[in-house]
Amino acid sequence: MLTLEKAVEILRDSAEPVQDKERIPLIEASGRVLAEDITAPMDQPPFPRSPLDGYAVRGEDTLSASRECPVTLEVIGKIYAGEVFHGKVEKGQCVRLMTGAPIPEGADTVIRQEDTDYGEARKANPVRIFRGSEPWKNYCYAGEDYKKGDILLRAGTVLNGDRIGIAAGSGDDMVTVYREPRISVISTGDEVISPGEPIRPGKIYDSNRYLLAGRLGDLGLGEINSSHCPDRIGDMCERIREAAKTSDLIITTGGVSVGEKDIMHGVMEELGAEKLFWKISLKPGSPTLAFTIERKKTGSFSGSDRIPVICLTGNPYGVAVNFELLVRPVMEKITGNSAWLCPKRLCLLENDSPKRGGIRRFMRGSFTEGRVRILTGSHASGTLSSMADCSCLVEIGEGSSGKAGEEVWTYIL
Amino acid sequence: MLTLEKAVEILRDSAEPVQDKERIPLIEASGRVLAEDITAPMDQPPFPRSPLDGYAVRGEDTLSASRECPVTLEVIGKIYAGEVFHGKVEKGQCVRLMTGAPIPEGADTVIRQEDTDYGEARKANPVRIFRGSEPWKNYCYAGEDYKKGDILLRAGTVLNGDRIGIAAGSGDDMVTVYREPRISVISTGDEVISPGEPIRPGKIYDSNRYLLAGRLGDLGLGEINSSHCPDRIGDMCERIREAAKTSDLIITTGGVSVGEKDIMHGVMEELGAEKLFWKISLKPGSPTLAFTIERKKTGSFSGSDRIPVICLTGNPYGVAVNFELLVRPVMEKITGNSAWLCPKRLCLLENDSPKRGGIRRFMRGSFTEGRVRILTGSHASGTLSSMADCSCLVEIGEGSSGKAGEEVWTYIL
Repeated sequence: MLTLEKAVEILRDSAEPVQDKERIPLIEASGRVLAEDITAPMDQPPFPRSPLDGYAVRGEDTLSASRECPVTLEVIGKIYAGEVFHGKVEKGQCVRLMTGAPIPEGADTVIRQEDTDYGEARKANPVRIFRGSEPWKNYCYAGEDYKKGDILLRAGTVLNGDRIGIAAGSGDDMVTVYREPRISVISTGDEVISPGEPIRPGKIYDSNRYLLAGRLGDLGLGEINSSHCPDRIGDMCERIREAAKTSDLIITTGGVSVGEKDIMHGVMEELGAEKLFWKISLKPGSPTLAFTIERKKTGSFSGSDRIPVICLTGNPYGVAVNFELLVRPVMEKITGNSAWLCPKRLCLLENDSPKRGGIRRFMRGSFTEGRVRILTGSHASGTLSSMADCSCLVEIGEGSSGKAGEEVWTYIL
Repeated sequence: MLTLEKAVEILRDSAEPVQDKERIPLIEASGRVLAEDITAPMDQPPFPRSPLDGYAVRGEDTLSASRECPVTLEVIGKIYAGEVFHGKVEKGQCVRLMTGAPIPEGADTVIRQEDTDYGEARKANPVRIFRGSEPWKNYCYAGEDYKKGDILLRAGTVLNGDRIGIAAGSGDDMVTVYREPRISVISTGDEVISPGEPIRPGKIYDSNRYLLAGRLGDLGLGEINSSHCPDRIGDMCERIREAAKTSDLIITTGGVSVGEKDIMHGVMEELGAEKLFWKISLKPGSPTLAFTIERKKTGSFSGSDRIPVICLTGNPYGVAVNFELLVRPVMEKITGNSAWLCPKRLCLLENDSPKRGGIRRFMRGSFTEGRVRILTGSHASGTLSSMADCSCLVEIGEGSSGKAGEEVWTYIL
């Protein structure tokens, strides 16, 4: 049987990064991937800027100033941030200005207003300076943050608030990003009915579709196309063909085992799909089936010619585990966003695993800084309620003792 | 001057958790906070369920079975998952059934189909059993996952994919959650113009508003009301009064220092606001001002009678740091969602801090599992471009050496 790592490699090889670009409002671009470099259209700041409220002076005029022997300067203008003084500061002159205002020509430093009398008898002019400043001391150079032509953010960067702030500083309110991946989730199972419908004998509610759509939402995907399909090969083929027109990845649940209603093998055949693998050496969720199908593109939607279809087990816990271990790495490939990868750490196991030996297992765990505890409660793969407090998956490998005190690989959700 | 911890405490005391509830589609509820317990309306599974494809039998009938001496049973029916067999399995009888189907009355275990001849000569009936099963061995009890009346998820739980899956299993396609907090961001500064407008002499683009809206988006907030306001006390009062009608928190940037255009003190006075504090002992962003104002509620919008207004510095890096340290804990109080808290860890500092001594400082850093490196590049508080690769804030405390090898508090972004 295939190892998990090999299955991930095969799946990632079968998926293509999204290449379509779109322009969206920068202020809403959190989590999106930049499709083009952002280059500075100007110096930042665009002009020499005052770091203080005070007086822009020629530093050499002020060096001798003290409270006992102030230097007196002529105030030739006053500007606030956002305003410009159009003259030049000559010897013996200064300009009153506020933090963020451009330092006028001729001046080379700014005296803090606390080190002045704010203009003699507060009549604004002239001003007495009690403490001088070396030239260029209180002076933010144009381009101090970055220079015109500098690359501020490279294509492939995942935008976050700080980077959105940086991009905003360069003046564009729109940004070119890769479009979001389109993922279709299709659950199967004639025993499954959708939440909101009345329950009937022999039926259970569809948690798999909700779990997968919810997890994709957790990880930042806005829109997910999800539906349920009855266990009929023809219907499922039709559903997959339709989804493939506008999807980068299709995930199904159920129908992958060996029973009479395990339709996904027949679906794969009827679609003329190319099989990637069936069965992975792990628990839960070992009967995962994967194939690729040809994509008929429609309208303005572009993308690769073939897309992967990952067919997960119908067991809810198997779906949960396979999503973290298999689907997330594929999403990382498709989006180019490493946030899709599940962080993995070696942690000290605090309690004995109730299951161990044999096949590689992934147990529900609770994680706190370097230590991990396997949750009590049901570990059956059909059981989902014990996922409520699950913050990580704990790997109990084939050779592992599964005993407290062991170091185990922990996948942080 | 106030410590950061005291400032956080004061701000959190001034904010109220959102109490308004709303019903939304469960499948879109990722990241939302449950406002009511979800109680199981039925057992899960609702019926005893077959864990295998095979034959539902009375275990005692099969105990003697072996390949040499098979047990022969009459097949009285066949059901798939989602179907119900309405008879009872008597001695010597069995029902062919698939994984997930309800185990019929009378039967107490299921024989794997691989341990049978699938019905004599594949004619379906009778079936020969080659390997028996103890009663109740292959039998998923009704209520094995949870029982009718169990609380599946408690009010206050933050929904994620797994919990959405659990809630879906109980049959409701809608969920009652607290409404999302409404946050208003208002940037000030006459030197500031909005991205998308042409640049003019003396002006810079508004990165603060974009940074804050982006960070709120990073942390999961869908809609943010943000705008820029000129440095006029009357305009700003009007803007804040208007925002207060439908906001749970208002964040402003700029105008908090001591210059002539530092209007926020005047705004606070004219609004008749109750001052919480001015200035915190930290760098960058020490001149933070905070007050509360009365809220005039409109329409169906409810909430507390007073809301906090946090007035941050105009320096972009000061805004970034104060958002992480001050705003996030307030958001945690308002939402009840601990994802808003910034995780804090002691890490080994890998390089010397270029700034140290004096006031408590927060430097841009890059974090890798237990170790932290202060970013090279500009650490000026007016500089934002060096935030592009910042993954954490590094605290260089008053008594700290700021030297490589020291253990420092690291705030993971």
